[in-house]
Amino acid sequence: MSKHLTKRAEDYSKWYNELIVKADLAETSAVRGCMVIKPYGFAIWENMQAELDRMFKETGHQNAYFPLFVPKSLFEAEEKNAEGFAKECAVVTHYRLQTDPDREGKLRVDPEAKLEEELVVRPTSEAIIWNTYKGWIQSHRDLPLLINQWANVVRWEMRTRLFLRTAEFLWQEGHTAHATKAEALVEAKQMQEVYATFAENFMAMPVVRGAKSESERFAGADETYTIEALMQDGKALQAGTSHFLGQNFAKAFDVKYTSREGKQEYVWATSWGVSTRLIGGLIMTHSDDAGLVLPPKLAPIQVVIVPIYKGEEQLDAISDKVQPMIAAFKEKGISVKFDHRDTLRPGAKFAEYEMKGVPVRIALGKRDLENGTVEVARRDTFEKQTMNQSGVVEAVAALLDEIQESLYNKALTYRNDHITEVNTFEEFKDAIENKGGFVSAHWDGSIETEDKIKELTKATIRCIPNDVKEENGNCVLTGKPSGRRVLFAKAY
Amino acid sequence: MSKHLTKRAEDYSKWYNELIVKADLAETSAVRGCMVIKPYGFAIWENMQAELDRMFKETGHQNAYFPLFVPKSLFEAEEKNAEGFAKECAVVTHYRLQTDPDREGKLRVDPEAKLEEELVVRPTSEAIIWNTYKGWIQSHRDLPLLINQWANVVRWEMRTRLFLRTAEFLWQEGHTAHATKAEALVEAKQMQEVYATFAENFMAMPVVRGAKSESERFAGADETYTIEALMQDGKALQAGTSHFLGQNFAKAFDVKYTSREGKQEYVWATSWGVSTRLIGGLIMTHSDDAGLVLPPKLAPIQVVIVPIYKGEEQLDAISDKVQPMIAAFKEKGISVKFDHRDTLRPGAKFAEYEMKGVPVRIALGKRDLENGTVEVARRDTFEKQTMNQSGVVEAVAALLDEIQESLYNKALTYRNDHITEVNTFEEFKDAIENKGGFVSAHWDGSIETEDKIKELTKATIRCIPNDVKEENGNCVLTGKPSGRRVLFAKAY
Repeated sequence: MSKHLTKRAEDYSKWYNELIVKADLAETSAVRGCMVIKPYGFAIWENMQAELDRMFKETGHQNAYFPLFVPKSLFEAEEKNAEGFAKECAVVTHYRLQTDPDREGKLRVDPEAKLEEELVVRPTSEAIIWNTYKGWIQSHRDLPLLINQWANVVRWEMRTRLFLRTAEFLWQEGHTAHATKAEALVEAKQMQEVYATFAENFMAMPVVRGAKSESERFAGADETYTIEALMQDGKALQAGTSHFLGQNFAKAFDVKYTSREGKQEYVWATSWGVSTRLIGGLIMTHSDDAGLVLPPKLAPIQVVIVPIYKGEEQLDAISDKVQPMIAAFKEKGISVKFDHRDTLRPGAKFAEYEMKGVPVRIALGKRDLENGTVEVARRDTFEKQTMNQSGVVEAVAALLDEIQESLYNKALTYRNDHITEVNTFEEFKDAIENKGGFVSAHWDGSIETEDKIKELTKATIRCIPNDVKEENGNCVLTGKPSGRRVLFAKAY
Repeated sequence: MSKHLTKRAEDYSKWYNELIVKADLAETSAVRGCMVIKPYGFAIWENMQAELDRMFKETGHQNAYFPLFVPKSLFEAEEKNAEGFAKECAVVTHYRLQTDPDREGKLRVDPEAKLEEELVVRPTSEAIIWNTYKGWIQSHRDLPLLINQWANVVRWEMRTRLFLRTAEFLWQEGHTAHATKAEALVEAKQMQEVYATFAENFMAMPVVRGAKSESERFAGADETYTIEALMQDGKALQAGTSHFLGQNFAKAFDVKYTSREGKQEYVWATSWGVSTRLIGGLIMTHSDDAGLVLPPKLAPIQVVIVPIYKGEEQLDAISDKVQPMIAAFKEKGISVKFDHRDTLRPGAKFAEYEMKGVPVRIALGKRDLENGTVEVARRDTFEKQTMNQSGVVEAVAALLDEIQESLYNKALTYRNDHITEVNTFEEFKDAIENKGGFVSAHWDGSIETEDKIKELTKATIRCIPNDVKEENGNCVLTGKPSGRRVLFAKAY
């Protein structure tokens, strides 16, 4: 395997796949479309999980766990949802293997051990959860029910891509039940905002908050709120969605509550999720031709210290200086690694941590020992500076904050530079094909027009932004009247 | 549902099942043998996970994630392991549903969408992980490889029981690779000790550390180390196991490394796991006829504060006293709940928290306001005392430690009182049938004798204790010579 990455400008998709492997994030597995998340990649997911979990709990949610399998009859109870996912379901039909009489020592599925009812491996858990909620909700006092689950789900998709689209992926799915429509709408929008805050403050990834058009909604939802990010190649990424499910699942599973007034009412529902796809978004928002670039708040290693030495004695002298630094970093909650392996030269270590996106590198050699200095290098800009050993921990702590902010600002500038307002279909096609990014255009509101635009340009409506302004105009395709612009883009 | 639990002495198994439901820990689901873990039960699991994860990381392990599915051909590569699990595998054979032409709007498995190779839902992940390790391990520098995974696994068992044995369960599975046999043995024993420490220090559940007899070993292991706990009904519970896998998986998946000397060698392996079964063990170690009893270190709510009031004004006055207490508890990292619901009387709340095993209850009424006191009640002993409000936080913090210790000591006394040394088969049967607990007996070391004893008494060899003494004696069944005693018990 070559040490160098394919350049983004050469082949973005190849760059992405190579980076994931070279940065030790993940790899494909022996199971079609399923990935192995390697320790370094998983550590990023753990950091994401910790922060999201904290935010969910702060907003009153509790975690629970529901079965991996959904009996087919439950799965099909909410018809739109079932139809939406039916084509990509892994199905368990048998529960035993036995020795194959034709192939010595080999196993085959035992035909005798057929399940009475097939089990769908959850592609999402609304069905099994709402079937359970039926037993949990009787009275208005049982509401709101605010539950989240961290789980694996399976969607048997034909075209997969590490992190962005895999047959099995890890996610969280919130499922809430409310007494009123208004309360459920507030919840769905609140969780969109939680996701947006997480994306911007932790991933340093600016997002557009908006609502999906009808044809892009979650199957079974009355309204889907989304956060849409922009990748460096000009394609959009749906990074998280929060659905207002109306009473669709309550009706499908007959979940009613007795109101304060003693009336039987169907409850109102939301569901919302983000997945390991976020890691794909993180990579494509910040990384460069040298490898991964990570925002400090999610980096498994925030600071790496590399000694430059000859012989044990020099290493010992450097270690003496480094140990109190490590203690001081840890004291501040900054994760630090001292890489004193003697099997790699400093240059090779530098390259490794560049590839892995460690935000700050500190190097210490013989001359630094004499001068009481260290060399501090930023991963994002490659800037280096010499600092005094005495103040280095405070300075690096401040630098990490600066990097976090700078990554966000850089991504924001790029994103804002790639929202193009167009008024004709020629401009639309030109922007989509030649510039990339979001195109802000008038649309007549019909599914037919949306489909036609997709057919002609591969661009889809990413969202109707939350902060959209009323503005009279004409649909870029049909010229029919339109009251506001929506955002189109090619998307992952 | 009756408010009261069946008594343990009446029907232990019924008591266990009722307690789980009434304490809001878990329930059965629409999927045969699979459970729903409710928020309160899941919060216990989260506390267990946090502590175990910290211990795994302290001992140098990293988390990763491997696919849910194992292609059948990989699954069968290590023959003993495959045989051991073949009879309880859920198997995915198809990947699509379609509308059933015979039943309008209903779905059926699409016969066209048959997988080329069936996928086994992982009952354990050695096969998929060792197939992956083949690509990760080339040199002695890649070793040791110390990886853990938190995951769901599926074993299609016919007789299931909430937490103790469910078709799907949550667990962690460590999978490590080492250059030498000695190092792998040290690892396997280290993880047994990590589990034992967790069980004793956090679950307050004493365990016997030992090795399994050959017939009780994990399928594919050369040695299985176990921690065995004793439940209140005299049955043993295997609470965690750590396996020395020898080179069995390395050979099955051809995983070799180049040694320092430049030779190609097979690596040595371990695997180790604990699961949501631990929650079953926790329940059966401490709980009583009033409900759950939780050790403070794992209790989702450590302290509950119940106001006893009439009218808003009294509640406000109580809240004024309680708020600084809550802040002080949180400051100490003690989780506290102030239950000021106006829909339940204090007595009903007391009963609820007794059922849920909250270790300490603080009650505050009108008279307490006048006297500057609170009533503090222990869940484990039901002891109550009046304390001054001023010192209550420190006193309760100390009380929580005392409860933790007291629960452990009580369980230890019970366990020690239920290890019976026997020298004849009459004594053996009497102890197993009438007293319960562990029976320490000489055994001739043969599988035949072990099987015969199981057939006659339902007791199995739980383990050969780590601290077993050499002692000449005669097998209780056959009279053949034996060099040490082993522990038998009926087990879950």
